[in-house]
Amino acid sequence: MTPSQHLHGHLIGQPGSRDDLNTPALIVDFDALEANIATMAAFGRDAGIALRPHAKTHKSADIARLQTAAGAVGVCCAKVGEAEALAAEGIGSILLTSPIVTVAAIERLVALHQRIPDLALVADHPDAVAAIAAANTGRPIRLLVDVDPGLHRTGVASAADAVALARRIVAAPQLDYGGVQFYCGSQQHIATFAERRAAITDLTDCLRTVIAALSEAGLAPPVVTGGGTGSHRIDAALGVLTELQVGSYIFMDREYRDCEIGAAYLTALTVDTRVISANAPGIATLDAGLKAFATEAGVPVIVAGAPAGSSYRFMGDEHGAVVVPAGAPAPTIGTRITALTPHCDPTVNLYDAYHVVRGETLVAIWPVTARGRSA
Amino acid sequence: MTPSQHLHGHLIGQPGSRDDLNTPALIVDFDALEANIATMAAFGRDAGIALRPHAKTHKSADIARLQTAAGAVGVCCAKVGEAEALAAEGIGSILLTSPIVTVAAIERLVALHQRIPDLALVADHPDAVAAIAAANTGRPIRLLVDVDPGLHRTGVASAADAVALARRIVAAPQLDYGGVQFYCGSQQHIATFAERRAAITDLTDCLRTVIAALSEAGLAPPVVTGGGTGSHRIDAALGVLTELQVGSYIFMDREYRDCEIGAAYLTALTVDTRVISANAPGIATLDAGLKAFATEAGVPVIVAGAPAGSSYRFMGDEHGAVVVPAGAPAPTIGTRITALTPHCDPTVNLYDAYHVVRGETLVAIWPVTARGRSA
Repeated sequence: MTPSQHLHGHLIGQPGSRDDLNTPALIVDFDALEANIATMAAFGRDAGIALRPHAKTHKSADIARLQTAAGAVGVCCAKVGEAEALAAEGIGSILLTSPIVTVAAIERLVALHQRIPDLALVADHPDAVAAIAAANTGRPIRLLVDVDPGLHRTGVASAADAVALARRIVAAPQLDYGGVQFYCGSQQHIATFAERRAAITDLTDCLRTVIAALSEAGLAPPVVTGGGTGSHRIDAALGVLTELQVGSYIFMDREYRDCEIGAAYLTALTVDTRVISANAPGIATLDAGLKAFATEAGVPVIVAGAPAGSSYRFMGDEHGAVVVPAGAPAPTIGTRITALTPHCDPTVNLYDAYHVVRGETLVAIWPVTARGRSA
Repeated sequence: MTPSQHLHGHLIGQPGSRDDLNTPALIVDFDALEANIATMAAFGRDAGIALRPHAKTHKSADIARLQTAAGAVGVCCAKVGEAEALAAEGIGSILLTSPIVTVAAIERLVALHQRIPDLALVADHPDAVAAIAAANTGRPIRLLVDVDPGLHRTGVASAADAVALARRIVAAPQLDYGGVQFYCGSQQHIATFAERRAAITDLTDCLRTVIAALSEAGLAPPVVTGGGTGSHRIDAALGVLTELQVGSYIFMDREYRDCEIGAAYLTALTVDTRVISANAPGIATLDAGLKAFATEAGVPVIVAGAPAGSSYRFMGDEHGAVVVPAGAPAPTIGTRITALTPHCDPTVNLYDAYHVVRGETLVAIWPVTARGRSA
């Protein structure tokens, strides 16, 4: 049980109970979340492309189950600990999207592989393929070749390297060749749809070259996985990916709200905070600061509780400020203020629980199952 | 038991076991931590000033106990949840340094007051004083007047407001007047000692005015609490504060390392991370990104494991990069790289556990007791 379930469990189902939550509180608008999951599920069905949503965004077994119930083939995880935590809550199909290279991590994955129906990994280096092949996996473990789209984060650097790595996978009896992964991370947030489409189209030409080389070598990839919320429509139209790793569509943070995504995804994630001090004109202090919001994508956006045009300012580890427009009254102590998160993934990772609301009623508290499981 | 205790508990006491930790891992150098605690304890004794270290930095019952054993009179907490978590682990003297204004939070504090020997609060508004006075506290609860040093974060705005608020506290039989709090937050990181001393000296003149007005009204403060790692020597020399709220001295992050602090506090907190991909010249990808470091104070500083002159670059939620100087070899996959945190408090808040080492041996795993307890 999370501290919040202990503290707030008795509020579930009580009309108006959102206002009784101790703040800062991570809030999920259930109606908006359900709409986003349904919209993306319909998109995948219509486009004939599988969905494997990335659980690094939400780290929640509850949300993973909703996505799977809507038709997702499984989820992605970024780290071994994240996969372990979700598997322990019954999530049975997981693709781990970061290369795993240490003996300790490989041992954990082999143990996980024995506990769940469907675990797949990616690799971008022959040493890692050899180490995984040498582990006692029981039944073969599925391994995909990670291909670098030019970001130099992870992935093999060329079509020739992709072919060489795929050959090593096919040659190892303990491994099952699963295809390729290709994730254009830095292109997801290009603001205009047209520029984003141009960038993704160019990179997908490189991916086509890799796939052609693999096919020529008799290694046609059974799965081509990648893409994100920013590129999903483009990826589906280009027709090269077979599986989409969309993540943020469920929440729509400030970064994605400011992009032309091309479908009506709704804001489903906010933080409720309160005024705890208001002794200076034009400004009031909130109980949510650097420990309540990830900071690398700018400041939170105030969406309710303060005069129109109010802005948020960080005021240290524990506090923020709401700055009201000239002439507007500053909110008084106790006032609830709601803020949109700049970047959802690392903000969610600060909290132990989601407070799920319909309107003003708390309807559920969901643990952030894999919070902090970065190792 | 934290996930890390489950995963790494068997490594405790094994020589060389630091290298077997799954990464990213928050690392405490126990020798350096003990030295820092001893240095500050000796400073407080020699200067005749009480130490009440701020637990918002470490959120750890284990570290709070070490500080208390070295002579600290108790600890500070920033939030109700933080105080609850530390109290549940036996920490018995807590000053809550943020104003508490909601009925829900006051009810939790009254319950906490009944469980521990010594709880004190601060207030900066008559409505909050009235609400706390109206609660059924059993025995009187100690309340201090928070005074704003000009930051406009929390605190009363003038000497007259301080006197008015102290009068309300004294008039309420359920309340016990504890003195004043005065925290110069934005001055702590002024880089040069001389400029910091000038700023703190100016602000302390304002505090003297407040204390004079209180004393004239028969409300001389029994405790004057405040200060931090950046100002502690200055505060002690000025002789107005009776109690220091030092926090970061135990860890010495990049921000404080770059300030002239004036005593030999050592770096005691780092993050161990590993290379998971190295397919591009001059750069290698680490398993620690936006979920492994707080980002608002710049980038982590690489202190071990990579060629001299290497720098860290954020590469998304899950990854960073080590960029080596021109001509230097990039580290290979599996290489352990150690990084200094830019800002300790919000970085610690990302982790469930400290991995405490002496040299290369893991000697303990301490839970981050109050992690995420921002509400």
